[in-house]
Amino acid sequence: MLHLDMDKAKISVSHGAGGRMMQELIKEIASIIENKKTRDGRGIDVLEDAGIANINGTKIAFTTDSYTVDPIFFPGGSIGKLAVCGTINDLAVMGAKPLALTLALVLEEGFPMAELKKIVMDINKEVKKANVAIISGDTKVMEKGKIDKIIINTAGIGIVRYDVSDYYARPGDKVMVSGSIGDHGMALLARRFKFETKLKSDCSSIASMALSLLKTGGIRVMKDPTRGGLAACLNEIAEKSKVDMVVYEDKVPIKEEVRSVGEVLGIDPMHTACEGRCVIIAKEEKAEEILNMAKRFDRNASIIGDVVKGSGKVFIETKIGSKRYLESPIGELYPRIC
Amino acid sequence: MLHLDMDKAKISVSHGAGGRMMQELIKEIASIIENKKTRDGRGIDVLEDAGIANINGTKIAFTTDSYTVDPIFFPGGSIGKLAVCGTINDLAVMGAKPLALTLALVLEEGFPMAELKKIVMDINKEVKKANVAIISGDTKVMEKGKIDKIIINTAGIGIVRYDVSDYYARPGDKVMVSGSIGDHGMALLARRFKFETKLKSDCSSIASMALSLLKTGGIRVMKDPTRGGLAACLNEIAEKSKVDMVVYEDKVPIKEEVRSVGEVLGIDPMHTACEGRCVIIAKEEKAEEILNMAKRFDRNASIIGDVVKGSGKVFIETKIGSKRYLESPIGELYPRIC
Repeated sequence: MLHLDMDKAKISVSHGAGGRMMQELIKEIASIIENKKTRDGRGIDVLEDAGIANINGTKIAFTTDSYTVDPIFFPGGSIGKLAVCGTINDLAVMGAKPLALTLALVLEEGFPMAELKKIVMDINKEVKKANVAIISGDTKVMEKGKIDKIIINTAGIGIVRYDVSDYYARPGDKVMVSGSIGDHGMALLARRFKFETKLKSDCSSIASMALSLLKTGGIRVMKDPTRGGLAACLNEIAEKSKVDMVVYEDKVPIKEEVRSVGEVLGIDPMHTACEGRCVIIAKEEKAEEILNMAKRFDRNASIIGDVVKGSGKVFIETKIGSKRYLESPIGELYPRIC
Repeated sequence: MLHLDMDKAKISVSHGAGGRMMQELIKEIASIIENKKTRDGRGIDVLEDAGIANINGTKIAFTTDSYTVDPIFFPGGSIGKLAVCGTINDLAVMGAKPLALTLALVLEEGFPMAELKKIVMDINKEVKKANVAIISGDTKVMEKGKIDKIIINTAGIGIVRYDVSDYYARPGDKVMVSGSIGDHGMALLARRFKFETKLKSDCSSIASMALSLLKTGGIRVMKDPTRGGLAACLNEIAEKSKVDMVVYEDKVPIKEEVRSVGEVLGIDPMHTACEGRCVIIAKEEKAEEILNMAKRFDRNASIIGDVVKGSGKVFIETKIGSKRYLESPIGELYPRIC
């Protein structure tokens, strides 16, 4: 416990960074809210990527995210693309087929219409690709200096087709990732620090891949490693499922350029956000089938570890057999990017 | 048409003020999005207070709003109360019973935890009162100076029970308001300008009132007059329904203090936001029954006008019989409050 004092403390950037401080804050907020779920549903009592409401026998996944990414245009995407993909991915990893989104823009006075148009065109492109619709929206404007350019919120609903949950990992399961790790965060950092690199964000919708893999019936957990990266994602699953995990360092797909930028900045790619990947916890007997299928979408898909008996810890094992904890980051390790 | 040039223009505060400039901007944005609704649903093609998705025979209303109100604590409420009531009201005026909300916070670094706690406690109170649940959330933090204190987005889903629409007003219908007009906006302005007044925001959930009135079967349109006030709300209904309206000036319930603050500031209460009221367009034969029922919730509920044949204009008729247009505000008439 980080002993958050709700009466005295102040918000720090670390409270939004996806690590342990953010988890603490979210738990504090959720503890104040008494109505945490609808009847027969799942809500902020379990803190997953989407809540689930049971409506006349149909399970509806419902999620939200506010996007504050900086820079708003980056190699491989924009805040518009990210806002659609991020929310679609939160639905997909909950086993839901995304159906409809809302779009709420908060704009800074003086923001160029031409940039707004580019962002909305990116939104349109991703919405069409994912075969969803934007059915409601909101637009607010704040005075110059009261907001940094633009914040986008997208909420989304989808129809739940598969029962997956952060709480379902079991000893014996395999740990997989659907592609290389840390591309998004490292690409944005590289752009921030003006490094010359060909690195691009992995920002993309993973819904059709996720739904294909879920069809195999072998997946217990799906989760997208966004803020806090792979490390935060695995730790959250391990804690919720009350299991340990062993990750084999040399099996984790990390691009050479991601590694290099990370080394220069002293940042672990495992703490760095992805925006078009998912972590999969699969039943052992189905793992190879799922891997082969995943490789058709991304050849970097890999089995990276095992779920073992335990109490919520994640270990990383090096090539030579040494083991250490893979800890969730505590707070913000570098300039905020999302 | 205000001739918005999407390639050259810049966003101004007026684009978020609820008037004609905001309508123009929203139409531009909506025109770029190709997937505007789901199958058999209603979406941003019709720009109502919520979209409607048809899921396995159940109609789900889905809406979003980002709240940027300043000040964040005001007489009669807070940004937390407003964020819950505003989204619940958007569902209710679409004839839906609110079911679940999402809550996305964007916080400024340094924001006091104690204030956040007060805001979340207000959220909890309203959520319980409205018998809905917050089932998913998101928390982001931006560096000091990159956002003004806090922005809250709430999205909401509800089950549609009654078929009402901005497009359903017909000549012969009666125009009603559920309570006094302009309290919210004028209370916030009074606080901004440090006027001594007992004025309080009308911020509250109107869902249970709305659902009671809708049961009569006599309501064609329900709409909450938020940004842009009663004037923008009536003009939008008139335009969408292709009818005119005549509003009798002396029938519009405006509190003495609202009128006074408005006179000092030179602001028309009819252009000022309400956050706990609705406009009702009712069939003539049901109007008295609905009015009597509405008076049980708020004794200021009133029939204020008639729907007549026309092409989308709203007239206001004074006591002595003179008539003028009641125009929607163009942009921002005073310091931004929401």
